[in-house]
Amino acid sequence: SAQVRCAFAASRRISAEALKPLDTFPRRHISPTAEDQAAMAKTCGFDSVDALVDATVPPSIRLEKSLDLGKYTTGFAESEMLENFKAMASKNEVKRSFIGMGYYNTFTPTVILRNILENPGWYTQYTPYQAEIAQGRLESLLNYQTMVSDLTGLPMANASLLDEATAAAEAMGMCSNIVRGKRKKFFIASNCHPQTIAVCETRADGLGMEVVVGNPAEIDYSGKDYCGILLQYPGTDGAIEDYESVIKVAHDNNAKVVMATDLLALTMLTPPGELGADIAVGSAQRFGVPMGYGGPHAAFLATSFDYKRLMPGRIIGISVDSQGNPCLRMAMQTREQHIRRDKATSNICTAQALLANMAAMYGVYHGPEGLKSIAERTHGLAAVFAAGVEKLGAGKVGSAPFFDTVKVDCGPGKAVGIAKAAEAKGMNLRVLDANTITVAFDETTKLSDVDDLFAAFSGKAAPFTAESLAAAVDTTLPSNFVRQSKYLTHPIFNMYHSEHEMLRYLSKLQSKDLSLCHSMIALGSCTMKLNATSEMIPITWPELANIHPFAPVDQAKGYEEMFKDLATMLCEITGFDSVSLQPNAGAAGEYAGLMAIRAYHQVGLTSPGYIGADVCHLNLHKTFCIPHGGGGPGMGPIGVKKHLAPFLPSHPVIPTGGLPATASQNSFGVVSAAPWGSALILPISFMYIAMMGSKGLTEASKVAILNANYMASRLEKHYPILFRGKNGTCAHEFIIDLRNYKNTAGIEPEDVAKRLIDYGFHAPTMSWPVPGTLMVEPTESESKAELDRFCDAMIAIRQEIKFIEDKVYDKTNNMLKNAPHTAEMVISDSWDKKYARELGAFPLHWVKDAKFWPSTGRVDNVYGDRHLITTLQPAEAPVEKVA
Amino acid sequence: SAQVRCAFAASRRISAEALKPLDTFPRRHISPTAEDQAAMAKTCGFDSVDALVDATVPPSIRLEKSLDLGKYTTGFAESEMLENFKAMASKNEVKRSFIGMGYYNTFTPTVILRNILENPGWYTQYTPYQAEIAQGRLESLLNYQTMVSDLTGLPMANASLLDEATAAAEAMGMCSNIVRGKRKKFFIASNCHPQTIAVCETRADGLGMEVVVGNPAEIDYSGKDYCGILLQYPGTDGAIEDYESVIKVAHDNNAKVVMATDLLALTMLTPPGELGADIAVGSAQRFGVPMGYGGPHAAFLATSFDYKRLMPGRIIGISVDSQGNPCLRMAMQTREQHIRRDKATSNICTAQALLANMAAMYGVYHGPEGLKSIAERTHGLAAVFAAGVEKLGAGKVGSAPFFDTVKVDCGPGKAVGIAKAAEAKGMNLRVLDANTITVAFDETTKLSDVDDLFAAFSGKAAPFTAESLAAAVDTTLPSNFVRQSKYLTHPIFNMYHSEHEMLRYLSKLQSKDLSLCHSMIALGSCTMKLNATSEMIPITWPELANIHPFAPVDQAKGYEEMFKDLATMLCEITGFDSVSLQPNAGAAGEYAGLMAIRAYHQVGLTSPGYIGADVCHLNLHKTFCIPHGGGGPGMGPIGVKKHLAPFLPSHPVIPTGGLPATASQNSFGVVSAAPWGSALILPISFMYIAMMGSKGLTEASKVAILNANYMASRLEKHYPILFRGKNGTCAHEFIIDLRNYKNTAGIEPEDVAKRLIDYGFHAPTMSWPVPGTLMVEPTESESKAELDRFCDAMIAIRQEIKFIEDKVYDKTNNMLKNAPHTAEMVISDSWDKKYARELGAFPLHWVKDAKFWPSTGRVDNVYGDRHLITTLQPAEAPVEKVA
Ligand SMILES: Cc1ncc(COP(=O)(O)O)c(C=O)c1O
Ligand SMILES: Cc1ncc(COP(=O)(O)O)c(C=O)c1O
Ligand SMILES: O=C([O-])O
Repeated sequence: SAQVRCAFAASRRISAEALKPLDTFPRRHISPTAEDQAAMAKTCGFDSVDALVDATVPPSIRLEKSLDLGKYTTGFAESEMLENFKAMASKNEVKRSFIGMGYYNTFTPTVILRNILENPGWYTQYTPYQAEIAQGRLESLLNYQTMVSDLTGLPMANASLLDEATAAAEAMGMCSNIVRGKRKKFFIASNCHPQTIAVCETRADGLGMEVVVGNPAEIDYSGKDYCGILLQYPGTDGAIEDYESVIKVAHDNNAKVVMATDLLALTMLTPPGELGADIAVGSAQRFGVPMGYGGPHAAFLATSFDYKRLMPGRIIGISVDSQGNPCLRMAMQTREQHIRRDKATSNICTAQALLANMAAMYGVYHGPEGLKSIAERTHGLAAVFAAGVEKLGAGKVGSAPFFDTVKVDCGPGKAVGIAKAAEAKGMNLRVLDANTITVAFDETTKLSDVDDLFAAFSGKAAPFTAESLAAAVDTTLPSNFVRQSKYLTHPIFNMYHSEHEMLRYLSKLQSKDLSLCHSMIALGSCTMKLNATSEMIPITWPELANIHPFAPVDQAKGYEEMFKDLATMLCEITGFDSVSLQPNAGAAGEYAGLMAIRAYHQVGLTSPGYIGADVCHLNLHKTFCIPHGGGGPGMGPIGVKKHLAPFLPSHPVIPTGGLPATASQNSFGVVSAAPWGSALILPISFMYIAMMGSKGLTEASKVAILNANYMASRLEKHYPILFRGKNGTCAHEFIIDLRNYKNTAGIEPEDVAKRLIDYGFHAPTMSWPVPGTLMVEPTESESKAELDRFCDAMIAIRQEIKFIEDKVYDKTNNMLKNAPHTAEMVISDSWDKKYARELGAFPLHWVKDAKFWPSTGRVDNVYGDRHLITTLQPAEAPVEKVA
Repeated sequence: SAQVRCAFAASRRISAEALKPLDTFPRRHISPTAEDQAAMAKTCGFDSVDALVDATVPPSIRLEKSLDLGKYTTGFAESEMLENFKAMASKNEVKRSFIGMGYYNTFTPTVILRNILENPGWYTQYTPYQAEIAQGRLESLLNYQTMVSDLTGLPMANASLLDEATAAAEAMGMCSNIVRGKRKKFFIASNCHPQTIAVCETRADGLGMEVVVGNPAEIDYSGKDYCGILLQYPGTDGAIEDYESVIKVAHDNNAKVVMATDLLALTMLTPPGELGADIAVGSAQRFGVPMGYGGPHAAFLATSFDYKRLMPGRIIGISVDSQGNPCLRMAMQTREQHIRRDKATSNICTAQALLANMAAMYGVYHGPEGLKSIAERTHGLAAVFAAGVEKLGAGKVGSAPFFDTVKVDCGPGKAVGIAKAAEAKGMNLRVLDANTITVAFDETTKLSDVDDLFAAFSGKAAPFTAESLAAAVDTTLPSNFVRQSKYLTHPIFNMYHSEHEMLRYLSKLQSKDLSLCHSMIALGSCTMKLNATSEMIPITWPELANIHPFAPVDQAKGYEEMFKDLATMLCEITGFDSVSLQPNAGAAGEYAGLMAIRAYHQVGLTSPGYIGADVCHLNLHKTFCIPHGGGGPGMGPIGVKKHLAPFLPSHPVIPTGGLPATASQNSFGVVSAAPWGSALILPISFMYIAMMGSKGLTEASKVAILNANYMASRLEKHYPILFRGKNGTCAHEFIIDLRNYKNTAGIEPEDVAKRLIDYGFHAPTMSWPVPGTLMVEPTESESKAELDRFCDAMIAIRQEIKFIEDKVYDKTNNMLKNAPHTAEMVISDSWDKKYARELGAFPLHWVKDAKFWPSTGRVDNVYGDRHLITTLQPAEAPVEKVA
């Protein structure tokens, strides 16, 4: 081999530190570089970032010690943490679930999995308050509403609620509101899911109502105190009951009827609307959304237009834009923020938009015939199982009609043994009582699974196969239950059935929505930081995605470990002693906190000030990186001080409580359908914290403060900035005051918000907490370059306002009032604006590089609310043009 | 429970058939519905699809029996097949690889994994022949070229070649071409990778050249017959040789110097260009592209501008557009098709665009400092290992400098035993000879791996840890090898280092590229059918992605089974007896076929007619759904008749041959670096066939024919259609004749192609095989609605031409000549066209719905070729504007 005759460079040793993995996370998550940070601090008038932070966060509230996050303290590298977490997740055992109870296995069509759930173009958007740059999601959510409305047979649906149980509680609240709170009792049929009953009971407690559980054929209306009743259709045990007379009697007694139902079953069964129900609720989970150990999933509520003003959650409606073209937006919700405390009586902020989109697309992809086939096959498998189990002599099924869930009387004391035998074969059944098992089927069940069930029930291989039995099994339903009406007749549900058509539909809708993939979304108080890929990857691992929330807990050891580690870290970070992971939205967390305090004091409501000290609600979908998903999912765990820990939420099926676990428990009740809320998204926050480590989290906070102050420093030369501290700095957000421009130029905050769209930006939070202002929160994941672009846009807009003030631009026909400008508008041959087209669409040179075009002109909210339309319309009946 | 007192509907039984899984694939892949198909056949003048197919495919060549695909005959449902294949893939054992030899473990940054490799917006594009709608990929490929050029120290690089070995063979061909074939010998240093030597030998054989392998210090130039020499830097055994005098001597003897090199090493080592090499080749695999059991990966070739006309593969260059703005396009390749047989001497069609994009983005994400840190850490781990293994007395390392690969003399006959011990601990080493092992490190190696290696080498746990050793280890390289020059100084490599910046950069580039996510890409002879998600999912499973191509074959049982099943099905489908999976592009397949025939006849070249009968090359990236990836990867397996089977390609490291395996073997040689070519993409075709099943494949062919005939039927009323069969039908593609419009309206095919962009479409194949025409292949995955849109666009364009013919539109200033129209053009205040802006950008009403905007005006190819620029330019030195 060649001669090495060369001099050696100066001897160089490598440190063990330099041999640690290099794919560390904080430097990827926190965008400003060290040089940027130094320069930005200087712009703010400080020598260093630390000097700025010292001036901003007073020593009195400053945490001096660094966070002890146990083994996560130093922060794992991305590849390491993915490996670690994979090992942890693998401690979960994924068994086939036949548990039912509102949660079913489902196939997520892979085109939907990849292009929605795993796609930042769909999961990083904010709630569609800026309708002009959210028409894609809005169309999909309108599809969701239409699908729910068609299937339930009720004209108006929302998009969406948190879970079936809270949807039932919302419906209960509506029933009470319909009679203005004058009737305090609400009846719940005992064949409702236990978690639904429990959540309603807890909510009733908070509302000063009383829940009565029993046989709906025997309700005593004599006190005239029932505002409504809740029926489950089909029941939790699978039986399809005939509610004709129950409904009639309720109505005769001025009680409203709520039906909790199943969308898949409704492709075969007479829908609630046709049975006379006033409200239908349920979950769209089985429409392609993984069980995820409890959530997130989209729930729905459908009702008549009579109750539109009482409808909880988000409602998408059709309106018209400035050009007179039809467009979509959130209806009856004109204020950009839903979070004003006095109005926020229910979870109107976080919805389950991402999951509603998945469910809607599942409906679009399968269409009416596809869904019907899935339902019939599911029902057929249930029927074959029922026939086989009787034939085997392994149990009695009885004569009640069922859809997908078969109740088997196995003989005295036999249920647990059979369930154990099934578990040994990798199948989870539901033990209803000592003698009774239910078996719920779904689209993933195979004929061979039915054979395995036969073996589990009879203790040996059956002498026949499910396949051989099929032809002899009668799958007929009683005729009064058989649905006659059509559904999903709109072309959208009938034209995207091939993968290619679906892919293009998804990408067309995606292209209409501005997301974090495009530019910063500086929503004050909404922390739109980037949701990193490595945080998102675990949520579609089958080990996490395919577990039923009521599976035996020893099958979920991986989840258990993650919950514990996450809760422990959240305690350390917040300084609280115990955490409940159950609340699946911020509002649910706030409510749970109040209820825990009440349980502790056994007195009435405490003051909000008091909450501050003893309870803290953590919006994981903000600070801890769960993406906003275009309006949910969210997650609202609460941290509490030690004395409140025993009172944290529990669950009727799987007992839970605060984490770390407390010695004694005295829970106030249940706030969400699933024991740990939306368990499947907790990995996102877990990954974030574990990869950031103690130093990374502290740096994130510092840079969040730095970014906000840097922007405030740049913008204060152009706009008044409100609410700065005594050192002239702000915390991680600040407020731009726009109130004066109304007088000087006739410009409203909305004009500025819409004009920002022309520059490629989503507006900050508008008019909250101060009317007439914008609240800006840049977050630590935005780079200096992006902050500068946003500031440049705001400064350019100020200049535009100045030109209006100076009468250079027209007071009404100007680029702010006409914003946003669609391509159609600026290309139109009938352009009649008093400024150049280029100024409309390309106000700064860099906008041209990757122009994001709004798909509609400014949306007319008032028109849409006056002519409320909340489902897809036949092409022949377009919204009337007003232009 | 409720009384069931209702009548039952007519008794209904379910068939076992209806209980089979419903997520069948063919109906998702083949877009036209049964009703559509019937209507389309009618438009073509036939009563049924079958009648049309009967008229089109003559009985003489019609396959009568249905395909026997073994257990795949009926076609598996999507969920079933994903489950089956997961089980098969799990038979692979993923061990840690220290084998090296040009393949290394690497971390694909998850933001790149998700947003490029798993994103149809990046993998479904066609080769960027239509530059105006491909600026995203073109920028990324220019980044690739710049990165390769900077790191190798040579001014011009291509993007990209198939693998390092074929890149070396291409370089050999260049050396020969430089002297116009007058020197027949090519020298290869014996420390080159064995697969590189083997591929060059086979290629030399085909070119009538002779390869001499030996010590480059001892080359005998006396015959004046060496056109070039190939050196490996660092060598396959890890040693970094000093080639100063070898290079000088070669140049003194008029031989060109090719260096095979490693991009990561070049961040630390003096680059080939500075050492005087004429050409550098290598693989960019370790820049974030999974090993994938051999491929696909992007290789590179860099050289001086002197050889630009001899450069193989694609070269991206900077030019200007119709507005005088800088833009990108493929340079020196003005014809839209590269496939004219007479010119296609090398693999200029399929490149490895998708993988080059991944590698380029890896460079962008890490930047110069990041790459250097990775290199230094890798080198540091190697140095620590070398020190430790000597300290343990377990082997001698010697004094040759190394980068990442340590050669250990383990003592007589000890190598195999140590390798076995390592394998038992889950680690694969390379046994160089009975006494010698090499251990190659990479960015995924951990300190604990080094400890495991110590244990394997010494037979017990070492008395020290790698970590404890680090501080004492000297990592110095000889000073003449230490790189002094800068690299990756362009801002693009220094501004996207946080995930958020990277995500936005990726999505900005993506938004400039038209892909199958937007509209059909009806490339004649290129079969741009949809690449379904379920086909793509397996390729990022670690069980498939993380295996070294030279891992012991018993660790790749899953791959083995898949290869066998796939090859068997390909034999059944093509009617051939044996298949070689090694050729990793169509050209390589054609070449392998010729070589096999030659080996059989032991005579010179046979005629192409003869190839037709005995060999068939299968472009899996067309018919069998491997996506085009924006210009690769491709795959070119060949099927042969029995008598040719023994001659199929083998491999010097892992012996291979035809599948199913033949009794005797007499291979002609080696055509690709890896034993089974680009193994990681074979799952795509495998999934496709296994899910389609026999009936599905036949139906796909029928619908491909139907779709083509339907379009031809609609278009024949407006354009002459060429090459139809005697029944007036075409097969799966047809040709539109545009030749006459040059005379009648001054319109060239290119004008039509560019005008199609304004309608949202990619042009069909231009001027091939007939100049002046468009060749259209719609494929079975396009829906009737999409075909109709394309036809509507073509018909509207014909009308526009008519208006030019009729002098309604101007002959030079018209929408065809000015096409494509960017947003900037139509919004410009200086619009001077003789037609309305709206006609430019929105020629049909549905174009508005989701307008795809070209990012540049028409590209000037000639200008770019005259001023060839193939790397990123400093912002201060923009391309001169010509407008
Ligand atoms: C302060 C604040 N709380 C809560 C929310 C909404 O989250 P949730 O509905 O989960 O409380 C938002 C965002 O809209 C918010 O800004
Ligand atoms: C007929 C034909 N062969 C081959 C190719 C290219 O594939 P490959 O380079 O793998 O042969 C193409 C497409 O560009 C083609 O149209
Ligand atoms: O509105 C939110 O989902 O935060």
